[in-house]
Amino acid sequence: MEKIDGIQLKSEITLADLEKSEGGEITFSACVHKIRDMGGFSFIILRTGRYVLQSVYTKDECRGDFDALTEGEYVTVTGVVKKEPRANYGYEITLSSFEILSKPKEEYPLHVSSKHLGCSIETSMEHRSVALRHPEQRAVFKVAEGVVSGFREFMLGEGFTEIHTPKIVAAGAEGGANIFKLKYFGQNAYLAQSPQFYKQTCVAFFDRVFEIAPVYRAEKHNSTRHLNEYIGLDFEMAFIDDMHDVMAMETAMLRHVVKYLADNYSHEIEMLGATLPEVNEIPSVTFFEALDILGKERAQFDLDPTDEVKLCEWAKKNHGSEFIFVEKFPGLKRPFYAMDSKDDPKLAESFDLLFRGLEITTGGQRIHDYDEQVEKLKRYKVEPEELGAYLDIHRYGMPPHGGLGIGLERLVMKLLGLDNIRQASLFPRDLHHLDP
Amino acid sequence: MEKIDGIQLKSEITLADLEKSEGGEITFSACVHKIRDMGGFSFIILRTGRYVLQSVYTKDECRGDFDALTEGEYVTVTGVVKKEPRANYGYEITLSSFEILSKPKEEYPLHVSSKHLGCSIETSMEHRSVALRHPEQRAVFKVAEGVVSGFREFMLGEGFTEIHTPKIVAAGAEGGANIFKLKYFGQNAYLAQSPQFYKQTCVAFFDRVFEIAPVYRAEKHNSTRHLNEYIGLDFEMAFIDDMHDVMAMETAMLRHVVKYLADNYSHEIEMLGATLPEVNEIPSVTFFEALDILGKERAQFDLDPTDEVKLCEWAKKNHGSEFIFVEKFPGLKRPFYAMDSKDDPKLAESFDLLFRGLEITTGGQRIHDYDEQVEKLKRYKVEPEELGAYLDIHRYGMPPHGGLGIGLERLVMKLLGLDNIRQASLFPRDLHHLDP
Repeated sequence: MEKIDGIQLKSEITLADLEKSEGGEITFSACVHKIRDMGGFSFIILRTGRYVLQSVYTKDECRGDFDALTEGEYVTVTGVVKKEPRANYGYEITLSSFEILSKPKEEYPLHVSSKHLGCSIETSMEHRSVALRHPEQRAVFKVAEGVVSGFREFMLGEGFTEIHTPKIVAAGAEGGANIFKLKYFGQNAYLAQSPQFYKQTCVAFFDRVFEIAPVYRAEKHNSTRHLNEYIGLDFEMAFIDDMHDVMAMETAMLRHVVKYLADNYSHEIEMLGATLPEVNEIPSVTFFEALDILGKERAQFDLDPTDEVKLCEWAKKNHGSEFIFVEKFPGLKRPFYAMDSKDDPKLAESFDLLFRGLEITTGGQRIHDYDEQVEKLKRYKVEPEELGAYLDIHRYGMPPHGGLGIGLERLVMKLLGLDNIRQASLFPRDLHHLDP
Repeated sequence: MEKIDGIQLKSEITLADLEKSEGGEITFSACVHKIRDMGGFSFIILRTGRYVLQSVYTKDECRGDFDALTEGEYVTVTGVVKKEPRANYGYEITLSSFEILSKPKEEYPLHVSSKHLGCSIETSMEHRSVALRHPEQRAVFKVAEGVVSGFREFMLGEGFTEIHTPKIVAAGAEGGANIFKLKYFGQNAYLAQSPQFYKQTCVAFFDRVFEIAPVYRAEKHNSTRHLNEYIGLDFEMAFIDDMHDVMAMETAMLRHVVKYLADNYSHEIEMLGATLPEVNEIPSVTFFEALDILGKERAQFDLDPTDEVKLCEWAKKNHGSEFIFVEKFPGLKRPFYAMDSKDDPKLAESFDLLFRGLEITTGGQRIHDYDEQVEKLKRYKVEPEELGAYLDIHRYGMPPHGGLGIGLERLVMKLLGLDNIRQASLFPRDLHHLDP
């Protein structure tokens, strides 16, 4: 029998460790990212879990079989940390020994150690597990981690409860054909298009909730902005006066996330050459105002991708904002749980947020009154029975409430200026990609 | 056009707000949890997103139509905060006015305002959206939030990267028939039984990763300890010497989570009458030692539920620990990616963690070498092609690594001493429940 006390833990190397060890010896494990023979000595570039460090090998100073060393191996190295302004982060390690922990079977099929990966998206998808070893590629997902962490920190700070709701469901929240079907012990079931019904349910007792979880859309899009499985950042809040309370919460959240990224992920933001947006006042126009800005007739019910680009250009030019809200959409294209506008029941208390030319959020105020919801369902020709237990939440009482959903990958894509949403998903799911 | 600055946000009431407002007026929104007519005055018990507060109504002091007030309504109240040792948290609000924001259509079908909900699990499932309005019921999910927050804080602090991996997959990590199937644009697809392949993939470039996400098992169990969809707390780490590094990380993580709960969720822990475990040294026995302790022959390959209970009793009695690791299981019952033991290749470098009589974790060291993995697949009669791109990670090199998966609901169930795992899931998925 042994005893595990969890007191001495192995740790990852950090930049603070380098600083602390300057002039002294350090030992850590890493991947051999690149070997550059310089004649009398060699640079051995080491890739840790977050950094790419420069070490120097000379036969005289370092034990170990140099000829056995190849790119892609995992090693433990020991060496002396020296200041070196020309090296990444200003430090270089003069190796005194190394041990090879594991060897690849084959060489990388991609240029993992080049400055840029420099291959097509399709090739990067085909060799996904290799492409992600490129420092720029993986950096995208450190930023995604930062967005999620910043979002969560903000939500918890504002008294939102984090929930986890099922993704196998009996009915789709958005309806329509764009839903994945499966058999659940003989019953017809679906993959959740959003946590809509569940987050509304939880508002009845937690007032404010958020969820970070996968969302499924069986849309047959083959575009640079759609994924069939993505991460939804959802929140829902009680006791709103109107949807502007939700929009204000989102604005404050985005400001927090941008600051969180600047504080904790500047390394990756710089590597990727990205510019973080400023989140000050976000202009909000009604859908009809948006059509006026676009110089279009009031003959459409939703915005198309070109409209989104043009509205963002307008907001940037006229209000210095890379974000713009569009509110009060025609009800026709909005879900049955959206509240009708008091001024004009043909409009819904529903909004989108556009960022750098792309819709990243849909939200709004929801119906909380039972009779109002039942009446609206009739107009949508939805039978209450189709919704299972959902109407129970209205039957037994709901506070006035609203919320929104943000597509994580879309937000990351636009924060980093990526061309294709697949670059913002570790293992994208689209029409043609199910593996890995 | 309007401008949204997100500077003045509505906020949830906290206990600090009560303290700060003592002697003065406070305004907040809540649900009317209970009304108790005391003759000359009435107690109006108000349920906020986290607390249950006592307010006092008298006709003389309070404006508003008292007769319109019923349980289950959502209201905004204003009143003076007074110290009152007999009230929850030591404060009482003397109401000066209230406004009714929304009304239920029907009365609750359950006793939401009783001290305990006092209905069967089946009834609580049937009226799920109402049952969860009971303060004790919802408190379980605040504790779950705390477990997740504590887990995440620990992982990020130890240099793990949070990842999000797809749940629609081309191959099951655990194999077998216990997998939900679906059609993905004409292809056969499955719901992920674990993020195993993906977290291993990410270890190649992030060294350490964790994920908090749903996990799917199509097992036809109808027990108090199985769910068909649950939340997996997964991590995977590179550069381990052996699986004891993983076990040490889990031990430290659990210690952190317990402290996090004590620091931030004592309100709920007390309400639920739960006792947090101490996490000091956790004893670890081999599978064969476990059989010896149980007085059983070496004729079985896994532990059954009774064994788990008895081993926990033994650990408690002999080592004062409510946790016990069991390691080096017979390889036969462990997955193909588990590393064989050096001492005895019939055993796997694989472990379970038992807590208060229940297995809450399975983990171990994984194979990192390509040839070793291919050879083991042959023994498991798995064709490499069945695994899609998975073997690429070994082909192009993997560090020595290991990890584990924890079932969130099982951990919460045992932390809180709940009888049935369904009580630890907001909307449980089992053989008979798909809605809500």
